[in-house]
Amino acid sequence: MGIMFGFDERISPEQLRVWRAFERAYGRVSEQLEADLVELHRLPLAWYEVLARLSEAEGHKLRMSQLADMVMLSPSGLSRLVDRMIKEGLIRRIPVEKDARGFYAILAEPGRKRLEEATGTHHRGVLDYMISRFNDEELAQFTAFLERLHD
Amino acid sequence: MGIMFGFDERISPEQLRVWRAFERAYGRVSEQLEADLVELHRLPLAWYEVLARLSEAEGHKLRMSQLADMVMLSPSGLSRLVDRMIKEGLIRRIPVEKDARGFYAILAEPGRKRLEEATGTHHRGVLDYMISRFNDEELAQFTAFLERLHD
Repeated sequence: MGIMFGFDERISPEQLRVWRAFERAYGRVSEQLEADLVELHRLPLAWYEVLARLSEAEGHKLRMSQLADMVMLSPSGLSRLVDRMIKEGLIRRIPVEKDARGFYAILAEPGRKRLEEATGTHHRGVLDYMISRFNDEELAQFTAFLERLHD
Repeated sequence: MGIMFGFDERISPEQLRVWRAFERAYGRVSEQLEADLVELHRLPLAWYEVLARLSEAEGHKLRMSQLADMVMLSPSGLSRLVDRMIKEGLIRRIPVEKDARGFYAILAEPGRKRLEEATGTHHRGVLDYMISRFNDEELAQFTAFLERLHD
């Protein structure tokens, strides 16, 4: 049924299955986390992530390049996201000293409040949709497997 | 530094780490797979996935609802994607008999050719960015872990 390939490009169906399992697992988990955040807090998952990373950072601020790397967005994707979050008053933009073109995103008070309201929902989701599926040993193993894919 | 929570909403830093590891791993792998497909074949990853699922399906066609479920897109997201792929001539839309509002997406010849060209690139990426990081036993275990998150 599918397309035929040269020998050197073959991978086994079992090997291809890991990518499809990964895609589906990520899709399912992120879709459920996002649905809860949007329903209860009108907060898309990527917005939640930006607020959470800022709240954990020194001075509640991060350079745009650091933030882009943390939330796995392209610079242009992050820039659009940040513009919308500034418009809603959740974060602010402040210039970087001695770097005319650089700036930080910094958590604003409404953003801090919104994050505080939403964090329980997010953590409950991570528990329900991920952590509850594993015992402690499995969870450590799964995390270690995932971290092998980070570079 | 971070926000404080009520006791019942706490999850441990180790537990939260699995979600962040998952997010970063998925981001890294999909970003690398997409970069190769776009550079060598001008084919975004989601387009590749649509072509691959159609090529494997009976008659090279799928109902829109089946396809949306397979590629983890919302109906509106898939609809926009399919419109662009039809415009490029890679797939076609055909009506479902006895269902005035339903239709199939079906693989068109230029789409079949484009998929054939791109499949080696995709498989090499899955090997390099995922499979090569594990031995056979680990790969089976990792796949099984991922499949626990599917529902």
